Amino acid sequence: MNLHSAAFATAKTSSDSSSLRDRLFATRALSSDLARPLSDEDQVAQAMDDASPTKWHLAHTTWFFEAFLLKRFLENYRVFDERFEYCFNSYYESVGPRQPRPKRGLLTRPGAEEVRAYRAFVDAALERLFATDLAPAAAELIELGINHEQQHQELLLTDILSLFAAEPLKPAYRDANPGIAVGETAPLDFVSFAGGIVAVGHDGNGFAYDNEGPRHEALVRPFKLASRCVTNAEWMAFIADGGYATPTLWLSDGWNLVRGQDWNAPLYWEDTEGGPAQMSLNGYRPVDPSAPVTHISYYEADAFARWAGARLPTEFEWETAASNVPLEGRMLGAGHLRPLAPARGKGLSQMIGDVWEWTASAYLPYPGFKAAPGAVGEYNGKFMCNQFVLRGGSCVTPEGHIRRTYRNFFYPHQRWQFTGLRLAKDA
Amino acid sequence: MNLHSAAFATAKTSSDSSSLRDRLFATRALSSDLARPLSDEDQVAQAMDDASPTKWHLAHTTWFFEAFLLKRFLENYRVFDERFEYCFNSYYESVGPRQPRPKRGLLTRPGAEEVRAYRAFVDAALERLFATDLAPAAAELIELGINHEQQHQELLLTDILSLFAAEPLKPAYRDANPGIAVGETAPLDFVSFAGGIVAVGHDGNGFAYDNEGPRHEALVRPFKLASRCVTNAEWMAFIADGGYATPTLWLSDGWNLVRGQDWNAPLYWEDTEGGPAQMSLNGYRPVDPSAPVTHISYYEADAFARWAGARLPTEFEWETAASNVPLEGRMLGAGHLRPLAPARGKGLSQMIGDVWEWTASAYLPYPGFKAAPGAVGEYNGKFMCNQFVLRGGSCVTPEGHIRRTYRNFFYPHQRWQFTGLRLAKDA
Amino acid sequence: MNLHSAAFATAKTSSDSSSLRDRLFATRALSSDLARPLSDEDQVAQAMDDASPTKWHLAHTTWFFEAFLLKRFLENYRVFDERFEYCFNSYYESVGPRQPRPKRGLLTRPGAEEVRAYRAFVDAALERLFATDLAPAAAELIELGINHEQQHQELLLTDILSLFAAEPLKPAYRDANPGIAVGETAPLDFVSFAGGIVAVGHDGNGFAYDNEGPRHEALVRPFKLASRCVTNAEWMAFIADGGYATPTLWLSDGWNLVRGQDWNAPLYWEDTEGGPAQMSLNGYRPVDPSAPVTHISYYEADAFARWAGARLPTEFEWETAASNVPLEGRMLGAGHLRPLAPARGKGLSQMIGDVWEWTASAYLPYPGFKAAPGAVGEYNGKFMCNQFVLRGGSCVTPEGHIRRTYRNFFYPHQRWQFTGLRLAKDA
Amino acid sequence: MNLHSAAFATAKTSSDSSSLRDRLFATRALSSDLARPLSDEDQVAQAMDDASPTKWHLAHTTWFFEAFLLKRFLENYRVFDERFEYCFNSYYESVGPRQPRPKRGLLTRPGAEEVRAYRAFVDAALERLFATDLAPAAAELIELGINHEQQHQELLLTDILSLFAAEPLKPAYRDANPGIAVGETAPLDFVSFAGGIVAVGHDGNGFAYDNEGPRHEALVRPFKLASRCVTNAEWMAFIADGGYATPTLWLSDGWNLVRGQDWNAPLYWEDTEGGPAQMSLNGYRPVDPSAPVTHISYYEADAFARWAGARLPTEFEWETAASNVPLEGRMLGAGHLRPLAPARGKGLSQMIGDVWEWTASAYLPYPGFKAAPGAVGEYNGKFMCNQFVLRGGSCVTPEGHIRRTYRNFFYPHQRWQFTGLRLAKDA
Repeated sequence: MNLHSAAFATAKTSSDSSSLRDRLFATRALSSDLARPLSDEDQVAQAMDDASPTKWHLAHTTWFFEAFLLKRFLENYRVFDERFEYCFNSYYESVGPRQPRPKRGLLTRPGAEEVRAYRAFVDAALERLFATDLAPAAAELIELGINHEQQHQELLLTDILSLFAAEPLKPAYRDANPGIAVGETAPLDFVSFAGGIVAVGHDGNGFAYDNEGPRHEALVRPFKLASRCVTNAEWMAFIADGGYATPTLWLSDGWNLVRGQDWNAPLYWEDTEGGPAQMSLNGYRPVDPSAPVTHISYYEADAFARWAGARLPTEFEWETAASNVPLEGRMLGAGHLRPLAPARGKGLSQMIGDVWEWTASAYLPYPGFKAAPGAVGEYNGKFMCNQFVLRGGSCVTPEGHIRRTYRNFFYPHQRWQFTGLRLAKDA
Repeated sequence: MNLHSAAFATAKTSSDSSSLRDRLFATRALSSDLARPLSDEDQVAQAMDDASPTKWHLAHTTWFFEAFLLKRFLENYRVFDERFEYCFNSYYESVGPRQPRPKRGLLTRPGAEEVRAYRAFVDAALERLFATDLAPAAAELIELGINHEQQHQELLLTDILSLFAAEPLKPAYRDANPGIAVGETAPLDFVSFAGGIVAVGHDGNGFAYDNEGPRHEALVRPFKLASRCVTNAEWMAFIADGGYATPTLWLSDGWNLVRGQDWNAPLYWEDTEGGPAQMSLNGYRPVDPSAPVTHISYYEADAFARWAGARLPTEFEWETAASNVPLEGRMLGAGHLRPLAPARGKGLSQMIGDVWEWTASAYLPYPGFKAAPGAVGEYNGKFMCNQFVLRGGSCVTPEGHIRRTYRNFFYPHQRWQFTGLRLAKDA
Repeated sequence: MNLHSAAFATAKTSSDSSSLRDRLFATRALSSDLARPLSDEDQVAQAMDDASPTKWHLAHTTWFFEAFLLKRFLENYRVFDERFEYCFNSYYESVGPRQPRPKRGLLTRPGAEEVRAYRAFVDAALERLFATDLAPAAAELIELGINHEQQHQELLLTDILSLFAAEPLKPAYRDANPGIAVGETAPLDFVSFAGGIVAVGHDGNGFAYDNEGPRHEALVRPFKLASRCVTNAEWMAFIADGGYATPTLWLSDGWNLVRGQDWNAPLYWEDTEGGPAQMSLNGYRPVDPSAPVTHISYYEADAFARWAGARLPTEFEWETAASNVPLEGRMLGAGHLRPLAPARGKGLSQMIGDVWEWTASAYLPYPGFKAAPGAVGEYNGKFMCNQFVLRGGSCVTPEGHIRRTYRNFFYPHQRWQFTGLRLAKDA
Repeated sequence: MNLHSAAFATAKTSSDSSSLRDRLFATRALSSDLARPLSDEDQVAQAMDDASPTKWHLAHTTWFFEAFLLKRFLENYRVFDERFEYCFNSYYESVGPRQPRPKRGLLTRPGAEEVRAYRAFVDAALERLFATDLAPAAAELIELGINHEQQHQELLLTDILSLFAAEPLKPAYRDANPGIAVGETAPLDFVSFAGGIVAVGHDGNGFAYDNEGPRHEALVRPFKLASRCVTNAEWMAFIADGGYATPTLWLSDGWNLVRGQDWNAPLYWEDTEGGPAQMSLNGYRPVDPSAPVTHISYYEADAFARWAGARLPTEFEWETAASNVPLEGRMLGAGHLRPLAPARGKGLSQMIGDVWEWTASAYLPYPGFKAAPGAVGEYNGKFMCNQFVLRGGSCVTPEGHIRRTYRNFFYPHQRWQFTGLRLAKDA
């Protein structure tokens, strides 16, 4: 089966466009497209507590529209199945009890076919809603629902990778695009920035998550930012230099994990006779030295930076540097499904796409942050503790989803996302 | 969908019959029949470490024939897929490494369709083997393979029940047979036995597992055995009398479980407005007072017996009492898939079928026991520790599988099998 | 400090003697003697959940007399401190709640000095009780209390060994007796026994625990029993032959422990340049090849026997063989505090003392067993599950405590007692 | 025993003073004073992994001087016992392996007496060092050692409280000072601050930990800070209003703890007939409504602030507000050993002493932070992840130890320190 390049084109197109309605249904269609290479069995299993089954993603994003939009704004709407709220509510305490997260993989019922019918049912209702006079609050919720579903598209792919990596047969989600050779490693430069009192956070034009605001001033000291992400070749040098065996490079919590879980390489790496290989959405592949390292924890990113005599950038340094960078890069629409070597050229590359970049910033509320009222207020605010901010999107972030102010966040031990790093230094 | 009574008839017929070949393929067909009401998704999930996915059962029983029989006895046999040995070896250390048991539910690959093809491939090879001059050792392994697959048929059903009980939608594996009314509770009598020096264990005529022999003499004291199993009505009296809240009724290890896991009823029981209900292969149903209590641990059986002023029988008491009982009862072929009230009548009833009966006997080797040579020697012997013997088969034991000398064994805390109890007393 | 040989002489003498009163106070004095080499700090700590602090043993055995004897039989007795019941009740559910077992090591209060005062207070009350007309039921409880305290004397020593083995400074409880050279290994013979219908269990003459009765007939097949225990030299051969790396030698539950906990030798063994050494009550010492192996689990004993082409004896085989053996051996009074090489000679040696011998018998009630009424009925019966019987006493069993019918019991994974094994074979 | 007010006077005096030498030995003496009310048994036990035994604190602070100062700067110094490095190294990976933290409570050897001798031995060596020409680097390490030991003085007390709270006899570390009545609750005001570009962090005059620098500019928005800490009375209102049962008040990680560990009040609180009581260093006492709430986690502080329509201050807001506050308050020298109601008056009270105040700031390095070279570089930097900053010291912080720039840090779930909170709001 060769699905590659064409598969996710709609998403790319749609992101450039146009009406809310078009973007909504393009997003809905993309989710279904992403599930298509998978068997119904693939869609039900859950490899670890952090991951969710594909089918659950498909149903949860649908329930999101049903619970927060249709029940409220579409007259006479009757839910597809009342029991789905228990099955597919993720973490909305305000809504009620739910299937425990580690047991999402037990939901063989409703079946994939029924979930597809659920999607069609809700899509039809969404069409009916568009035939009405759309309230601004409804439009806002649709926009939120689109962005929500895009987030789950990325998770769907990283979660299916966690499943396939745990399977002895190591299946590929998709064959690799032909003609993508191992790249040449671009030289590493540092680009200088003056800093100062800078405005950060979203300015309110267009959609943004509540956690990106309020826009406010921040004091940024002069700094230098690496022109590209850290590569696998550089990571191999770190390993060869005993990086995973040198406690003084590590945060204490990180070192405990390194010892307790025998970490000695990024997630999914294995030693083979021909050098390291890493499980990917294209199956097991030799590690490409010129591509960005990925599937690393914050602890590893931080230790590497210390080893390299550098540090991680803060999220405001990153945002400052990104302000003049075009909002484009290798994302889901490119269809590679893995990070690749940067193009050669001047200045910053890979800021958008390829890998999420760990920052040195704890995920905390901006000054004056207020969570949205109601259940959707649980979307971001209640996670503002114990996590770190990542910036820039990845090779599986849907086009149109990323912003320069976008704040992704994960726990410092988590590695199953397409996470990487870019070095920074004081000026 | 109404599948009931006809579904498993072939098994019953075949067990009465005839040639090894017929029994083999009837058994193979029954496994496929049992999986048929289930979606491919149902077949991949695993609700707990003790249980295995349906698909895994289907593939493992097939691998058993491939690994122990075909590779050795069928000339030029080439395995279907070498990687399946890792996927579907259960616990044969002699054979090699295997998918960790708690992660069998991650095997979305090979898919259910491919596993069905695997079954067909191996069945065809088994046919070819029958076309050859069958070595006695091969015939013995086929007999073992039949019995092995029958065991997994029972597990397939109890494991799917554990899955469906864990699902919020509580699906029924099959609708209940119509016309099975709640029964009348048969009176409880005690039947007396003289004991003495009795011969126990299998005499070598026909197939038996190695753990049923050698046949040997045992000293059995005079005893009395209850005419039927303990009923749900009696269990409700135990609950009402504070059975789960009275430490002096319990073994110490059992009491720790009662407290630590908040046990207050058999597994799958829930209180409803209309009284207790219990998840079953026929879905959630009101508890039938006259039916045998089931899904109880050894600890609960032992505590109940103490509360009732009785005790559990030893396995040799049970075997002695069973010696004159016809080898028939409500088993898988009856199609009820749950234990039912006994027929009224004289003497012992329900000895065969309905529920496995916990005995007071630790699962230990008989005097002179020797495990079979080679990998199949791991079948029984290495589990002779920490478990208790159960006797008599259950409502989901395939016809032809049970013997009066049959020793089933489970850990004393386990409850997901169709386990029940019958009281005994000193004469 | 050189305490050795004289230290525990009183116990030995007293066991031979005389009146209940003398034996009681000799036993009480011995407990205090055993604690004397220990600092107050040593007496408060608890190395693992299975072990108890010395101070706890001293107080619990005292509470036993207070709770079951003095409160009932000594007029106007007022307890020393009502709160001690919570602190020092071990597992008597009938008596009430208690300090959780894994938290006994937190009881810095009452202090050791106060516990010594508690002992003196209760001893004085016991003296007053002896000045009264002692009811037979009281005398029975005193006898039980003596035996109970003797059991705790053994535990006190094995528990302090578990603590000292966990300490980096590896202190010795006592210096080794001088002049105990490494012994010569006695040759291994097998002694034959005819078996038959034999009477086993205690006959009611003199004290015995309830679990030793009722005396009853058992059918014992002809068997052979090794003339001595398995030695360290033999164990080293087992290790050298890959015993800990050969799964087919092991029970399944045992093999999981071997893998999960990296067992590769008996507990407390470490490799040193000069060969294996083992922590003991005499401190770290080279392993004596001719001494019985000790600190092994049931799983290890069972695997060794399989490797040696033999098996473990049943408890009734052991009891049959012991019937003509003098009730003497190296026990606590000998003052060695570790097992030693057997004397050369004909027939069975080391049956009594040196090491507890694992048998193949699950710890279950004898036919007709009834637990004693009241709280002391919790002494033995509620543990009759999941454990195995050991016979014969050890190097730290107090004189006068052991009987040929004595049934000790531990879980098959436990290793901190002075456990060893003796081989058996079918005749 | 009535030890109260005089006990810790030396510390207070010494903190005001004078020479390094005087401060060193006053600090050393204070540690010994703090241990004096405790038995040797009290000093060896460990109630939980986070806490350490008193004896361990006494020895570890001594080892700190030996390992980092005496071995390097005192000619011909020979260590007291080489094995103590393994016993009493806390977390210095550069130094070598060590007793696992959760097993510090097993160190009955060396005994308390020997540890006292160790302290005397090292104190004598420190005296000898002062007789030499003290190198500046040595003086710096002595200063660090003094501050290090002061930190452990606070921990010694909070750790002994965790032990005594876990003991059924609930001993008091010291009787309460007489004449400390329940106070009147001071009214709650908010004091306004203008913010701006402010200088934060230590300016290098006098001792500070490396994590307090470099001093740098921060942008602080206008804010208001509560005039006093949140009181127990206010906390009772939070409880009464369902604070512990309202998920929308909580961070997600906090809510999981509330549910998983059944939190419904601060640590050590229990309901009694006369209202809530809380274990303290003065034993069990009724909760004083006017005193600051203490023994709360970050999660609880954050939830309370949300409930109160306020928020926690950032560490820079706190530091800005503290800049004009006198560096005095109820600390260890006051001898109360628990927080008390604030004095009435204008402006901010309780900024110093009483309870550590959780801030909204994650514990992260300041811009330009570099850990000190060598092993002492492990002191602070490697913990800069997953923790939150607390400010202001507590009722058991030694005088002279606190600074306005002092950054204490704990994990958000930890509650055994004297932690409380002060509300803040945007201006």
